[in-house]
Amino acid sequence: MRYKLYYWPTIQGRGEFVRLALEQAGATYTDVARRSERSGMGVAAMMRLIEDQRNPSPSFAPPFLQAGDMVIGQTANILLFLGPRLNLVPEDEASRLWAHQLQLTIADLVTEVHDTHHPVSSELYYKDQKPEARRRANDFTAVRIPKFFDYFESVLARNPHNEPYLLGDKLSYVDLSMFQIIAGLRFAFPKTMKRLASGYPHLMALHQLVASQPRIARYLASTRRVPFNQQGIFRHYPELDK
Amino acid sequence: MRYKLYYWPTIQGRGEFVRLALEQAGATYTDVARRSERSGMGVAAMMRLIEDQRNPSPSFAPPFLQAGDMVIGQTANILLFLGPRLNLVPEDEASRLWAHQLQLTIADLVTEVHDTHHPVSSELYYKDQKPEARRRANDFTAVRIPKFFDYFESVLARNPHNEPYLLGDKLSYVDLSMFQIIAGLRFAFPKTMKRLASGYPHLMALHQLVASQPRIARYLASTRRVPFNQQGIFRHYPELDK
Repeated sequence: MRYKLYYWPTIQGRGEFVRLALEQAGATYTDVARRSERSGMGVAAMMRLIEDQRNPSPSFAPPFLQAGDMVIGQTANILLFLGPRLNLVPEDEASRLWAHQLQLTIADLVTEVHDTHHPVSSELYYKDQKPEARRRANDFTAVRIPKFFDYFESVLARNPHNEPYLLGDKLSYVDLSMFQIIAGLRFAFPKTMKRLASGYPHLMALHQLVASQPRIARYLASTRRVPFNQQGIFRHYPELDK
Repeated sequence: MRYKLYYWPTIQGRGEFVRLALEQAGATYTDVARRSERSGMGVAAMMRLIEDQRNPSPSFAPPFLQAGDMVIGQTANILLFLGPRLNLVPEDEASRLWAHQLQLTIADLVTEVHDTHHPVSSELYYKDQKPEARRRANDFTAVRIPKFFDYFESVLARNPHNEPYLLGDKLSYVDLSMFQIIAGLRFAFPKTMKRLASGYPHLMALHQLVASQPRIARYLASTRRVPFNQQGIFRHYPELDK
């Protein structure tokens, strides 16, 4: 199966959680919006599919994935679909639901990261919501990151297989997403993350373990990995990182 | 199967999306935290399960559902699990993923509703984040509700079965959740909803259709339905509804 991923071409954003799964599995995929419009792809192709009135399952927003006849939206839903096909989640239903539950909790955290720089409106620039962003980011770094990290650290510590993964006895797509969260938070909130690191040894070890997977390491060093920047979900504004 | 639902007893909140599915299906369930602590239930039983270090799949937050040996968290994940068992979603994988995609988009909207009154921090009272709430609610009522409603209205309008449901040819759990969204927004933002109603005939008809299902109608009239109030996700602050 050749997959087609549709996501904004200039940011990691939510699409990155899907890219990491495809890369780790060595899947064949086209990152459509990053290809040229001359070739019939690019952002124009993505917008055509979003706006196509004949598409019976339109997405509210990117990312979405085309797999044969199916078009699947919502990041966690795409991973729910891909997980078994890419051999990145255990076989049994209970494990798959547990993996998905963790992925949805990661998705909640991603939304909170976004809202540190856009607490009022996605339609406004950061500079037009700076006082609100400062208050929200203070709460996020002081209260919310520790709350989420306490949770994920305890999930790692109690993995019944006694393995360094969030679930089961091999790497899953949830581990890849957790890697991305830690990488992103280190970019956006380096001071906070430096302060917190020693309290979360399992999480930091998981980040390292994922980064050292051969396919992931090659991907991260390639031009397929969009660099972190100031347009994505993870942005580094020093004034928000106390 | 007797299900056990764990959720805060004094609000509809996210638990309500699960309650509506269980009620429409006529399922046998215990709303654990609403029962007495004397009987071994109540909030204490919920907190015990959250904090139980032997639970291999702990939830970050309520709601969660106990079904036999399984404990499943995250609202949309619970509905993903219950949908087929309660006969509230079509059989085929494509339809189930599409239903789940819609449910996740509803979940995104629910988070945005919550953040209109808590744009800075869940740890602070509303009165301690009023200026931020006013800006966020202005954006929510002027931009975000119409954006989500445009999307869901177009999904209803293009249902290939030409039926009044969001997907397929019979009522699904997604329709029940959409009902709850409209009911909640009418409580929280009555002026905005009055202004918008005429632009969304399919959505308003769906709300009416769900409300008139015999089991839902009985549920809504019963004491099992927690009334809307000022502690839940949907809150009515007149100053946020212009």
